[in-house]
Amino acid sequence: MPTLGLLIDHPPDEIPLSHLNLVECPPVAVLTTVMPDGYPQTSVVWCDFDGECVRVNTMRGFGKERNMRRNPLVTLLSYDPRGPLRYLEIRGTVIEMTEKGAAEHLDRLASKYAGRPICFFGDAIPARFVETETPILCRIRPTHVTAIHEGEETE
Amino acid sequence: MPTLGLLIDHPPDEIPLSHLNLVECPPVAVLTTVMPDGYPQTSVVWCDFDGECVRVNTMRGFGKERNMRRNPLVTLLSYDPRGPLRYLEIRGTVIEMTEKGAAEHLDRLASKYAGRPICFFGDAIPARFVETETPILCRIRPTHVTAIHEGEETE
Repeated sequence: MPTLGLLIDHPPDEIPLSHLNLVECPPVAVLTTVMPDGYPQTSVVWCDFDGECVRVNTMRGFGKERNMRRNPLVTLLSYDPRGPLRYLEIRGTVIEMTEKGAAEHLDRLASKYAGRPICFFGDAIPARFVETETPILCRIRPTHVTAIHEGEETE
Repeated sequence: MPTLGLLIDHPPDEIPLSHLNLVECPPVAVLTTVMPDGYPQTSVVWCDFDGECVRVNTMRGFGKERNMRRNPLVTLLSYDPRGPLRYLEIRGTVIEMTEKGAAEHLDRLASKYAGRPICFFGDAIPARFVETETPILCRIRPTHVTAIHEGEETE
């Protein structure tokens, strides 16, 4: 893809306003952690932004959870499905992984993405799920942000 | 995202037929390489599949090109925009990076994704572009493939 979208000029550790919606409510984002054997490991995630950190949710024992505990260097990418040359890459460091508030955060993400209230861990509890999974809220502090704006086609 | 799509059972180094279209003509895919400082680096790419390897195209000197020459362990993820819980993650090793056929490959990818003939490096040459960029065709041999099928919602 040589289209060479335009780089947005901004402080390297800040998400420019023009691209904030790509972590606030994208369809999904893509999180990459690093495996013990050195391979990157990528999966589809929901995310949001608390003003300082991008937040994702995972479950205790999942591959990415174990990877982040061992190696906090991660990357999150989110592209605009209407024009995927507009995208945001956030390299960052996981500064917190906690059970505290994680279930509520997951409910909020789920509801936001579904566009209707969803309660995984609140009142309407799917018991088997709650018994077997422990959500973990992960906060990623951006260290290097690349914001690409759809540029001229090089054709 | 605790929805826990269903894992497709298949040989670990093969792309299941059910998910082949996610490397044959997805809207885009997402390629992750590893930076010298250990951070994953992710960007949006076009790709295709030659029956053995996933192929992507980059330019000499681009970050991901330098990363792949130093460290051939990469991951490509492609999700279905109609339902992003259907996705394919391919961890693999870059076994070839070559200029040979790279321009033609790039033209094919561009035409495929645009749905009409596009010629970056053929007859209709945008001279400035051709003078300044050297396309590199990269072949990634899958070593660990994860295919996720949209599963039951856990709500």
